[in-house]
Amino acid sequence: MTAVGTADAAALLRARLGEFQALVKAADLLEWDHEVMMPRAGGEARASQIAAVEKAAHSLLVAPEVGEWLEALGPAAGEGDGDEAALARWARRERRRRVGQPADFVGELARHVARSQEVWVEARRRSDFALFRPALEKMLELKRRQAELVGAFADPYDAWLEGFEPGMTTARVSELFAELKAGLVPLVRDVAGKAASLRVPEPRGPFPVARQRELGLEAARAMGFDFSRGRLDESAHPFSSGIAPGDVRLTTRYREDLPFSALFGVMHEAGHGLYEQNVAPELEGTPLAAGATMALHESQSRLWENQVGRGREWWAFLAPRFRALFPESGGLSAGELHRAANRVELSHIRVEADELTYSLHVMLRFDLERALLSGDLKAADLPAAWAAKSQELLGIVPPDDARGVLQDTHWASGLFGYFPTYAVGNMISAQLWEAALKAEPGIPEALSRGDGAPLLGWLRENVHRHGRKYGAEELVRRACGGPISPKPYLDYLRAKFGALYGL
Amino acid sequence: MTAVGTADAAALLRARLGEFQALVKAADLLEWDHEVMMPRAGGEARASQIAAVEKAAHSLLVAPEVGEWLEALGPAAGEGDGDEAALARWARRERRRRVGQPADFVGELARHVARSQEVWVEARRRSDFALFRPALEKMLELKRRQAELVGAFADPYDAWLEGFEPGMTTARVSELFAELKAGLVPLVRDVAGKAASLRVPEPRGPFPVARQRELGLEAARAMGFDFSRGRLDESAHPFSSGIAPGDVRLTTRYREDLPFSALFGVMHEAGHGLYEQNVAPELEGTPLAAGATMALHESQSRLWENQVGRGREWWAFLAPRFRALFPESGGLSAGELHRAANRVELSHIRVEADELTYSLHVMLRFDLERALLSGDLKAADLPAAWAAKSQELLGIVPPDDARGVLQDTHWASGLFGYFPTYAVGNMISAQLWEAALKAEPGIPEALSRGDGAPLLGWLRENVHRHGRKYGAEELVRRACGGPISPKPYLDYLRAKFGALYGL
Repeated sequence: MTAVGTADAAALLRARLGEFQALVKAADLLEWDHEVMMPRAGGEARASQIAAVEKAAHSLLVAPEVGEWLEALGPAAGEGDGDEAALARWARRERRRRVGQPADFVGELARHVARSQEVWVEARRRSDFALFRPALEKMLELKRRQAELVGAFADPYDAWLEGFEPGMTTARVSELFAELKAGLVPLVRDVAGKAASLRVPEPRGPFPVARQRELGLEAARAMGFDFSRGRLDESAHPFSSGIAPGDVRLTTRYREDLPFSALFGVMHEAGHGLYEQNVAPELEGTPLAAGATMALHESQSRLWENQVGRGREWWAFLAPRFRALFPESGGLSAGELHRAANRVELSHIRVEADELTYSLHVMLRFDLERALLSGDLKAADLPAAWAAKSQELLGIVPPDDARGVLQDTHWASGLFGYFPTYAVGNMISAQLWEAALKAEPGIPEALSRGDGAPLLGWLRENVHRHGRKYGAEELVRRACGGPISPKPYLDYLRAKFGALYGL
Repeated sequence: MTAVGTADAAALLRARLGEFQALVKAADLLEWDHEVMMPRAGGEARASQIAAVEKAAHSLLVAPEVGEWLEALGPAAGEGDGDEAALARWARRERRRRVGQPADFVGELARHVARSQEVWVEARRRSDFALFRPALEKMLELKRRQAELVGAFADPYDAWLEGFEPGMTTARVSELFAELKAGLVPLVRDVAGKAASLRVPEPRGPFPVARQRELGLEAARAMGFDFSRGRLDESAHPFSSGIAPGDVRLTTRYREDLPFSALFGVMHEAGHGLYEQNVAPELEGTPLAAGATMALHESQSRLWENQVGRGREWWAFLAPRFRALFPESGGLSAGELHRAANRVELSHIRVEADELTYSLHVMLRFDLERALLSGDLKAADLPAAWAAKSQELLGIVPPDDARGVLQDTHWASGLFGYFPTYAVGNMISAQLWEAALKAEPGIPEALSRGDGAPLLGWLRENVHRHGRKYGAEELVRRACGGPISPKPYLDYLRAKFGALYGL
């Protein structure tokens, strides 16, 4: 082993991480194409392609020389606020997570993810959990194995969580969720009590796909999403993918009978996309050039979807556009459309859920995932467990698998440990919204003119530009002056739905 | 070094080659996306992504253990007609070509290819060679270096040629081209002499893009291209890409003033695509699951474009569709459309050229490439040299760079040594056509009903299914009973254009 100087080690590490990142992004593009463009018959080959690229990326990072470079940099290299320090911290954690996973295991997992997604699409189409069960069982086996391989944690679920939310623990999520649930449940009950007697206006359909696409594009542009550095396409499950800061892709799905589903879907994904488009240019090409954690990512998507998109001000801007694109919809006023966009109901589909009940959908999945990991729950018993949890948290039971356990792509994609980040993201979205309004009081008025720039400017400065330099707690502390907390979110929901439902 | 048994070595090699192939195809998809879907701002990151994937593929093949496996298999392993033997032959040659090229060099070249394509698109748009020159100079430097690194050859150009046409030499190409030129030049002169006094009917435009797309899809379907295992999109330069046998992608470009350009473009690319879709399933996932050589690939595209698409029988089928899609075009008969589709003229653009002059465009590029490689010609002098060669071979001088030296994407993509395969492909297309008609006399009648199945069946059996098992000479010998020869092509052209132009 040749001794490497600190400066050399830093340069070598930077180059290697750049190459690692390029491969990770290549795999992302292969996945985007799989969902959006690929003929279905290409699925088996695509699974091999993604597996080979992910394996190559993995091998680059776990190679012994990377360990030597990190050692040559010394422990002090990961300290402080600079980009190089953040890069060293990131590399140490990511390498620690990967070094115990054999390359063949990584390839096998990637291949199974691609295959199991295909199976899930078909199973959901037929609403048949039994079709998906073998793929899910294998996925669980692989993901349990992975949890063992990535390191020792206080709670085994921490191993999954860390993959999306480094620094966050299962204990902390449980604590935050308990407080959130305690506030949400009575609020949902109160609103549901009022909702029955309140006539919520409803735009008349159908809403032609091409017009919905037009509305989504207009909303995303108003938010500040730059389509010269991005795209909007269709896929079975909406997602966004940051292939590069100059190449950020959003997808949505359209249903001609729903007026808001695609619109809020696009705004949600564009919220993610703005994050990816606005990372500081000096981080580009490194693994730091991405949203910091999934909770922070979801805080962005949820903020633009909800505080903005389901906000009163936004509908002052969007209502005339909506009426022009859908002249048969009944000519609802801005206020009526705003109320229609905030209909609260106990429903089955998470991504269509209103703001009040959304986090309950997440808690359901969080509980089930922990039970699956511990072995208390078998895959075969998942539909029954889902029904019970849904009854407990939402008071309803899904009528079929498609509207229950098969509704989300996450488990088919191996994304266990991801769901909690949505609800933590909801909390953070309210904290950031509060801080942004305090710093920039002109934001609501600008939104009422369809001008997202003041809000985007504040988010860029306080969140986006930092990329992956900080974890969620640290970034929230810097931007909002305190720890992650459900309180601002509960305050926001109480004020908003109190006014809408006359509580 | 652990000794590896023969059976183990074969299995290890097969697995490694599968992974190599998956990475190569991943890079192909990244390139397809670059040309068809990517926002332009993603270009720099895409260059890094492609470079990283190609470097990873390269590293997998040049790794020392692959040499050990090949050694353990022994020299006899590459002999005979079986799939494993062909795979070993392929691996030996590909590894020999790569082992002298450092991985960083491979990455640098891949990166420069992606960048230089971006520059070329812009330079062509502005018709400004000076804009492209620095990228071309660097490309030439890299490709000259590569020619030195891949091995020792009788002619340095052989090193380039082998990349697309293994087994073919520069001397053999020169010999074939001399014979072809000797037959073509007087034929072109005779036809051009007649053409001036002959009124060739011309369909009236414009030809709306959506209708042209419809016609192209119909033609490709009639050929037998399976769109459940492929796509058709638009790009600046038409190409096809076999991501997998179940995922074969064609592109074309549309001009509303040209009736046949996109149609024959689609048929050309679908000809390539049929080859990729019809390789024997047992070769799938190996590097043998692809068209054997580029001359064979071009023989397929040119055969479907010309012998079929510009043939009298095809227009019996296509004329009613053409008139229905373009009702303002003048109601030309099948015979008139056939003549219009075979207008001979001395023109500047290779991909739009008629069958008679097409090979002359290729010879021009072959001569210039050899001069560039030897250093007799500098990149700076290329436009002047192009003009001189064009005058010599076609009797015309391009009015600007866009219609001259900038018209093709090949040099921007580093594809030096590719062009000759088009003209060799023309020769082979006529040999295969002759053999197919002899074996299946019902082919013309089927084509007149829009049924490509009998021809596709013969090609599948005699060409496609073999994938990369044989080189071009061997495959032509098996399918047609003799060596590659320009004679059937010249006979075909003389008969066809003799009849059309009354010679």
